[in-house]
Amino acid sequence: MNNIRTDLALEAREYYTEQNSEEREIDGVEVEEYVDKQVMVSHVKVINENGEKIIGKPKGSYVTLEFADFVYYDVEAKEDLSQSLAKELSKLVKINDKTTALVVGLGNWNITPDALGPKVTSKLMVTRHLKEYVPDSIDEGIIPVSAIAPGVLGITGVETSEIVKGVVDRVKPNVVICIDALASRKTQRVNRTIQVGNTGISPGAGIGNNRMALNEKELGVPVIAIGVPTVVDAATLANDTIELVIEDLMKEAKSGSEFYNSLNSLDREEKEVLIGQVLGEKMATMVVTPKDIDMVVDCLSKIIANGINIALQPALTLEDIDRYLN
Amino acid sequence: MNNIRTDLALEAREYYTEQNSEEREIDGVEVEEYVDKQVMVSHVKVINENGEKIIGKPKGSYVTLEFADFVYYDVEAKEDLSQSLAKELSKLVKINDKTTALVVGLGNWNITPDALGPKVTSKLMVTRHLKEYVPDSIDEGIIPVSAIAPGVLGITGVETSEIVKGVVDRVKPNVVICIDALASRKTQRVNRTIQVGNTGISPGAGIGNNRMALNEKELGVPVIAIGVPTVVDAATLANDTIELVIEDLMKEAKSGSEFYNSLNSLDREEKEVLIGQVLGEKMATMVVTPKDIDMVVDCLSKIIANGINIALQPALTLEDIDRYLN
Amino acid sequence: MNNIRTDLALEAREYYTEQNSEEREIDGVEVEEYVDKQVMVSHVKVINENGEKIIGKPKGSYVTLEFADFVYYDVEAKEDLSQSLAKELSKLVKINDKTTALVVGLGNWNITPDALGPKVTSKLMVTRHLKEYVPDSIDEGIIPVSAIAPGVLGITGVETSEIVKGVVDRVKPNVVICIDALASRKTQRVNRTIQVGNTGISPGAGIGNNRMALNEKELGVPVIAIGVPTVVDAATLANDTIELVIEDLMKEAKSGSEFYNSLNSLDREEKEVLIGQVLGEKMATMVVTPKDIDMVVDCLSKIIANGINIALQPALTLEDIDRYLN
Amino acid sequence: MNNIRTDLALEAREYYTEQNSEEREIDGVEVEEYVDKQVMVSHVKVINENGEKIIGKPKGSYVTLEFADFVYYDVEAKEDLSQSLAKELSKLVKINDKTTALVVGLGNWNITPDALGPKVTSKLMVTRHLKEYVPDSIDEGIIPVSAIAPGVLGITGVETSEIVKGVVDRVKPNVVICIDALASRKTQRVNRTIQVGNTGISPGAGIGNNRMALNEKELGVPVIAIGVPTVVDAATLANDTIELVIEDLMKEAKSGSEFYNSLNSLDREEKEVLIGQVLGEKMATMVVTPKDIDMVVDCLSKIIANGINIALQPALTLEDIDRYLN
Repeated sequence: MNNIRTDLALEAREYYTEQNSEEREIDGVEVEEYVDKQVMVSHVKVINENGEKIIGKPKGSYVTLEFADFVYYDVEAKEDLSQSLAKELSKLVKINDKTTALVVGLGNWNITPDALGPKVTSKLMVTRHLKEYVPDSIDEGIIPVSAIAPGVLGITGVETSEIVKGVVDRVKPNVVICIDALASRKTQRVNRTIQVGNTGISPGAGIGNNRMALNEKELGVPVIAIGVPTVVDAATLANDTIELVIEDLMKEAKSGSEFYNSLNSLDREEKEVLIGQVLGEKMATMVVTPKDIDMVVDCLSKIIANGINIALQPALTLEDIDRYLN
Repeated sequence: MNNIRTDLALEAREYYTEQNSEEREIDGVEVEEYVDKQVMVSHVKVINENGEKIIGKPKGSYVTLEFADFVYYDVEAKEDLSQSLAKELSKLVKINDKTTALVVGLGNWNITPDALGPKVTSKLMVTRHLKEYVPDSIDEGIIPVSAIAPGVLGITGVETSEIVKGVVDRVKPNVVICIDALASRKTQRVNRTIQVGNTGISPGAGIGNNRMALNEKELGVPVIAIGVPTVVDAATLANDTIELVIEDLMKEAKSGSEFYNSLNSLDREEKEVLIGQVLGEKMATMVVTPKDIDMVVDCLSKIIANGINIALQPALTLEDIDRYLN
Repeated sequence: MNNIRTDLALEAREYYTEQNSEEREIDGVEVEEYVDKQVMVSHVKVINENGEKIIGKPKGSYVTLEFADFVYYDVEAKEDLSQSLAKELSKLVKINDKTTALVVGLGNWNITPDALGPKVTSKLMVTRHLKEYVPDSIDEGIIPVSAIAPGVLGITGVETSEIVKGVVDRVKPNVVICIDALASRKTQRVNRTIQVGNTGISPGAGIGNNRMALNEKELGVPVIAIGVPTVVDAATLANDTIELVIEDLMKEAKSGSEFYNSLNSLDREEKEVLIGQVLGEKMATMVVTPKDIDMVVDCLSKIIANGINIALQPALTLEDIDRYLN
Repeated sequence: MNNIRTDLALEAREYYTEQNSEEREIDGVEVEEYVDKQVMVSHVKVINENGEKIIGKPKGSYVTLEFADFVYYDVEAKEDLSQSLAKELSKLVKINDKTTALVVGLGNWNITPDALGPKVTSKLMVTRHLKEYVPDSIDEGIIPVSAIAPGVLGITGVETSEIVKGVVDRVKPNVVICIDALASRKTQRVNRTIQVGNTGISPGAGIGNNRMALNEKELGVPVIAIGVPTVVDAATLANDTIELVIEDLMKEAKSGSEFYNSLNSLDREEKEVLIGQVLGEKMATMVVTPKDIDMVVDCLSKIIANGINIALQPALTLEDIDRYLN
C-alpha cells in the first residue's frame, strides 16, 4: 500500500485508482455497490495477494456503509441505518441458536473520538448471564451475548489483545465482534462511514495505541471488525492540501515547462518539512474532528449498538430490544 | 456468623462481643490496635476455625483504618492517610524488585457508591507497558503495575472472576490487589473506614452482584483486598433502629415483667414485617449514603490510589508519583 | 403542619388524616382522584388558610402522578406517563400562541439525586433563539422556550432565586416552570411520584440548599413547580421505623397497662436520641436512595422533559419533538 | 484587521508584521516582553485607533502567557504558571477589601474544547455566600467571589450576555472576570497560551456561538477576559498550508518568471475552492485539536482557576486555597 493513512479499504482502493488512473478494477479486488434506502453500500472483496498488497488489508470482505449527515437528525433514518448495518453483519456472520457472541469495544474512553467502542458496548443487549443464571427470565430464542471494553495499553499497562485473549479463553464465544474508531483520509468520510469486515483487526489500526492483532488466527474464532472514522490526522489533512495545491497549479502549467517540473519535483521530504512548519512538533498528535464530536460519537454508538443487537437477536424486533434495554 | 450484613471483620467481631457481652477476646481471633497520626488502626487476625465462624471470614489478617470526616477537607491529612494505608499494605505484601502487580478495580462504574474500585484504577500509576516497551523511559527501580476494571455481571454478561482469571493467566502478576466498595452495618463507618485484608474476596461480598471468589486458591497468587464501606443497607438501618428502640425500652422495664417479656418476644419475623412496612417491597435495593457521595468517592479513590502507588513503588516519593501521573 | 419532612401535599394530607383518624376531608382541602392509563392521579386543592396550615403549602393546586416501577422498563409506559404529565400541566398553565416559557432546572448537578432539574433542562426542546434569529427555520406554531440550570448556592455563591430573577427580568417569559428534586416521607414514593403545583417553590423545599421563593409574587409571572421525591432522609426513615415498632407493640398491649403507658411516654426527645445513636452525627446528611439512582434520575428526566415538551408545544407530536431533539 | 481567524492580539500583531515585513512596531501598539520563570510574557498595549484597526481589538491591554507542553506534566511548573497568571491578573484588576468579583465561565460544557470556561468556574473558590450568611466561618480578609457558567445560546435559548447582565444586575460585583476558549491561528499555540485582557469580550469571539459583548460599557463594571486557544479551525490550517506551499515554491522561482507570476496569481477565491475540496462542505465545523484534549482542558482549567483564586484572595496562600477547596 502507498503509505497513506487510512483504515478504510474503500479509501485505499480509491487512492490507488486515483494515483494510477486505472479504469479496470484492481487485480485481486472485487467491488459491488448498491443503495439500501439512504445508505450507499460498497462491498470490497480482497481475493488474492496482489489485492492484499494494494488495499493494505488481508484477504476478506470489507463492507462500507456511507450516509449523509442528516441521519443524525432523523429518528427513522437512524433506525434504517441500524437495519442496514444488521443486514450486512448477518451476511458476514451466520447466527443460529448455537451462536454465542462476545462484543469488544476497543479504544480509550477518556478520549472522545476514540471512545466509540466502549460506548457501543455500554448500549448493547447483554444476555449471557441471564441465559446462564435465570434462563426462564428471557425468551428461548435469545442468543447469549457478552461485552467488554478492555481499555488501552496506556490505561491498563496490558496489550489490549492480551486482555481480549484472556477473556475469550474463559468465555469461549464462537464469534467475536470488535468495534473501533478509525482514521480516515478524507474529512467528508468522518462520522459518515461504517466499515464492517470479516478479517478482524491488524496491528496499528485505529487511532489509539492498539498494537495488536485480533483475528481468527489469534483468537481461534471468527472476528468481525466494525469501525467508523472519527478523525482525520492533521498531518494527512495538511498533506492532502499540499497535493491539491500542486495538482491545481499543474493543471495550468504546460507539461514539460520549468514550472511544471518544479512542481513535480516537490518531494515527500520537502512536503514533510512544510507539514512540520504548519503543525509544529505536536504534528503527530493533532487530529481534525467536527466540533460536536461528543454528540456525534454518542449518537453513532447507539446506531451501531442497535445494528449489532438486531443482527445478534434475530428472534427480536427493535422494539423488543428497546424494551429490554430500558 | 450471625446473619448481620457487614463486610468488615471489625464489625463482625464488635457485634459478636456486644451480643455476648464477652470480656475476653474471641477464641481464634487476635486483635491489636494503635494510632498512626490521626488514623485508628486495628489488626484483626483470624487464626482458627472458630474465629472464621464468628468473624465470617477465612483465616488471615484484616487491617482496618478508621479516620474522621475532616480528612476529606485537609490536603495533609489525606496524604497521611495514604501513607498509613501504604504502610499497612507493605506489611501484607512483600514488595521487591521481582514484584509484578495487577490491581483490579471491582464494581459498577455507573452506580456512584459502587464505582470506588474503577475510580481507583483510573488514578493508579500504571507502568507495566513502559517497563516492557520503553524501559529506558523510567527509573530502574520501578515495579511493573497493570490495572483493570472488569465491570460487573450485569454490564458484561460474564462473571467478574472469569475476566480477572483470564487476565491473570495472560499477565502473570505475582500479586493481585482488588479494590471494592463494601456495605457497613453502621452509618458512622461509611466512608470513614478502609479495610485491607490478605485473604482476597469471597462470593457475595461487596454491594454489587459480584458472586465470585478472588483469592490465592483461584488465582494462584496472593490476593490483597482493599475495601471501603460506602453504604449501609436501608434494611440494616431499619433493623438496627428497631433493636435500639427495644433495648431502650427494656432498660426501663423490670426484668420478668409482662412488658419486658413482650419486648423480648419480638422475633425476627415480626421485625422483618416491620422493615417491609417502612421500606416497601423495594427494601432490598434501598441504601443509605451521604448526600455528597459523588464527591466523597472521588476523594477516597485518590487516597487509596496514592496508598497503593506508594506501597508498590518504594523507590519513589509521593511527589515523583504525582509528577508521573500528571 | 406537623413537623414531618415531606414536600408532597399528598403526604402531608395523608399524614394528617392518619394522625387524626379523620373520615371527612380536611376543612380547606379538596381532593379528586382518578386513573389515567397506569397512572394514579390525585388533585389536592388547598382552598383556605386552615388547609394551608395543615398541608403546609400555600393555596393552590397540587397534582400528584403515582406510577409503578415497571414504567422505567417499558418504552410505551414512559410515553404514557409523559402524556399524563403534559395533560396535567396543560390544566395548570394555559398555552396559546402568545406564550413564552422559561424552564428552570433547580438543584446541584454534582449530587446525583439532586441533579433531576438540570438533567431535565438538558433534554428540553429549546426554541426561543430560533424564533428570534431564524424564525423561518421552524414551524410557525412553535412556542418560544428557554431553559436554565442556575446551580445552587454552594456552587455559585449566589441565591438561586437571585439568578432566576435576573434572568426573568431580561428574558420576560410569561410563565416559569421549575423542576426540583424533593424529599419524600416514604421510600415507596421515591422515584414513583411526580408532583405538579401552581404555587411555585417556597424557601426550604427540595433536598439542596435552595433557600428561596420562586413564585408569582417574586417573579411577576405564574410559576409552575414540578417535583419528584428522589430520596428519603435517613432520619425520617429511622423515625418512621421507631413509630412503627411502638405502634406494633401498642396493638398487643392493653390500653392503660404499665406497658402501654411506657410506650406512650416515649417522647420526641427520646426518639431523637435513638436516631442519633443509629445514624451518628452525620445524621442530617444521610439519605436513603435506590442503588440505581443514577439510571433512574436519567430516565425520569427524560419522562419529565417530554411531558413539558408536549405541553409547551401543542402544535407538535412527540415524534416531531424527538426529531427536533436529535 | 486582515481577515485572519485569531482571537489572540499577539497573533494579529505577528501576522501584520509578517505581511508587511515591518521592522518598527505598529503605530498605536506598544509591546513589552519578558520571561517569568518558564513562562514567556508579552504585553500588547493598543493605544489608538490605528492600533485597534490593525490588531482588531479595542484599546486596552492584552497580556499573553506562553509556555511549553511539559508544564502539563510537572506539578511545580503548573503552580508557577498559576502564579504568573495571578501576577498579571493583579496588574489588570486592583483587588482591595472592597472588591467583590463575579467569575463567568463561558462556553458549551458539552463540547470538550469549548468547556474550558465552565470547568474553571467549577474549580473556583466561591465565597460570596459564606461572607453573607456565615461570615464567622471564614477569614476576614477573604474577598466575596461568585461564579456562574451561563451556557450558550443553543442550550438556553437566551443570549449569554443577557444572562450575565441579569445576574450582574442582581449580584452587583465590582469586577467581572470571563473565561472563554479561543481559536488560534497556529497549532503551536493551542493549549500553550493564556491571554488576559482588560477590554472584555467582543461579539463573535470564542469558538462557540457567543454573539455578545461583555465589557464595561454593557455591564457597568470592569471586565477582565481570560482566554486560551484550544483549537485551530481546520479551514485556517488548510489556508496556512496553502500559503506555506506557495511561499516555498516562490523562494525557488525567479521573480518575474512565468512560474513566479502563476504562484502569485493564486487568489483568495481559488484558495477557498481548494479548501472546500479538502474539507468538504463540513469545512466550517471542523477543528484541529490535540487527541488528548479532554485531559488538557481539565488540567488547564485547574491552572487558570488557581491563578484566579490566588489573584482574588491575596490574604491566602495556595495551600490555604487548596484546603478550602477540598
